[in-house]
Amino acid sequence: MPLIFRIRYSVTPLQDVILPTPSSKVLKYLIQSGKVLPSLRDLIASRDKYKLIFISHLGSNQRRIFQTNGSLKTVKKGTRLSSTIAFSTETNVLTEIVDEGVFDTVYGKFHLKIEDVEIVDVEKLNKGVENYMKDNIVVRFISPAILSSKVLLPPSLSERYKKIDAGYSTLPSVGLIVAYAYKTYCNLIGKKEIDVRAFKLGVLSNALSRIVGYDLHPVTVTIGEDSKGNLRKARGVMGWIEFDIPEERLKRRVLRYLLSSSYFGIGKSRGIGFGEVAVEFRKLEEEKK
Amino acid sequence: MPLIFRIRYSVTPLQDVILPTPSSKVLKYLIQSGKVLPSLRDLIASRDKYKLIFISHLGSNQRRIFQTNGSLKTVKKGTRLSSTIAFSTETNVLTEIVDEGVFDTVYGKFHLKIEDVEIVDVEKLNKGVENYMKDNIVVRFISPAILSSKVLLPPSLSERYKKIDAGYSTLPSVGLIVAYAYKTYCNLIGKKEIDVRAFKLGVLSNALSRIVGYDLHPVTVTIGEDSKGNLRKARGVMGWIEFDIPEERLKRRVLRYLLSSSYFGIGKSRGIGFGEVAVEFRKLEEEKK
Repeated sequence: MPLIFRIRYSVTPLQDVILPTPSSKVLKYLIQSGKVLPSLRDLIASRDKYKLIFISHLGSNQRRIFQTNGSLKTVKKGTRLSSTIAFSTETNVLTEIVDEGVFDTVYGKFHLKIEDVEIVDVEKLNKGVENYMKDNIVVRFISPAILSSKVLLPPSLSERYKKIDAGYSTLPSVGLIVAYAYKTYCNLIGKKEIDVRAFKLGVLSNALSRIVGYDLHPVTVTIGEDSKGNLRKARGVMGWIEFDIPEERLKRRVLRYLLSSSYFGIGKSRGIGFGEVAVEFRKLEEEKK
Repeated sequence: MPLIFRIRYSVTPLQDVILPTPSSKVLKYLIQSGKVLPSLRDLIASRDKYKLIFISHLGSNQRRIFQTNGSLKTVKKGTRLSSTIAFSTETNVLTEIVDEGVFDTVYGKFHLKIEDVEIVDVEKLNKGVENYMKDNIVVRFISPAILSSKVLLPPSLSERYKKIDAGYSTLPSVGLIVAYAYKTYCNLIGKKEIDVRAFKLGVLSNALSRIVGYDLHPVTVTIGEDSKGNLRKARGVMGWIEFDIPEERLKRRVLRYLLSSSYFGIGKSRGIGFGEVAVEFRKLEEEKK
């Protein structure tokens, strides 16, 4: 089974800086320019929707900084920020993991230091599923998740409704979250031709999930600029959703996909930090009917 | 095409009263005991999930009174409450519509007065759809809607997952709302064998709907008492959801079903006032991507 790498950096600007939109671009720039983890350049450049790389927005105080209205975010010299990169690759990147360094970027000069490196075997991750079979599942969106409604369109109809732009679902269903997680998981383990399975899984997850609670709200996010400098916006969702799946076999599958997604995120634009999720567990309460 | 009747009553207790749980029981009692609209007794007694009767909770100041925790709700003598009954029946009930009266119930003595009577032909309602083809659709839950997740289970799997209790979806999807509305609508126009169609419609509505905004929250509701006097509870949802369906044919169908549901409500226990909805329309804004 493949390995997942997750590296947490502390990122400290050595001058007052204006953060790019989104702020994940600082790390992305460092990879693309070959200064940090150069082997990941191809992964970043990939057009694969379910590519196996996640670069978080910069954060401070347990929160990510993301810009909703295109307003500039300035950070003082010496402010300690954090960032997470997760990826899976067959290239040996271990030699490229450098503990500390000072780097020039187009956004200013930054000091990077590795806080911790996690390397996890997917097989081991999957075994962990058994620990959570009696728990409720909480998916917490740490940065806005950008989810296309059409991911749950029956694949047989995709040609027919090709021209319909259904936009983003800012009200995520369990099935939509699970379908996204499944597609990334399949990419991870090298499973192909999965569109029909993903659709069926999503539908089943919606029909057999019990929503215990949630606190969700839509947000407008700026995902970058087009070639003319105009802001590109999308609608995402923030908050959390707690649910259970009272069908053992389905729950086991869903847990497996979500555990991997806790590294790679959920939805679109994960490569620039959107859809960062924490997957948490809560003991099932005796629910009264 | 059938007719839909909607009668709005003012309901004024002539003594201090403790309202039953749910408060719709006052009107329900009056029908069941033959004092008001006696022809509707059979409709109330029907076990049909998609039956064509809605009896609202009592309300005051534009809000319905519903009890979330079983606490008793007392109302002072002379307080003017309101209630709405909607139904469709082939019986001639016109002669039973009495303008005003004083009635004894097991909950106390009440004065009823008809505020207005609306009789609408479903054909005419359907024609109204064209007025809203350019608008966003807002579904506002006026009383908690109780929605079973399994309504969007593929009918071919219903036997297989018969024993799985997935409970109520407190996070409604557009598809779930539409599937419920469709089933009631089919009952209204006498269309049979619709489970597969309802499922497909729900899936398609989820995949092709653009969620514009929402403010939703789960609520625990008391839907009555069992034979031992224990409270029976369920989980419902309150709030609103605004969406568009950028596929003309589907939007036309969805509008048709929702317009009827604005009379009969959405979900379970509509006969005792749950799932009361207002279907509203908002001009489509130019949405930027």
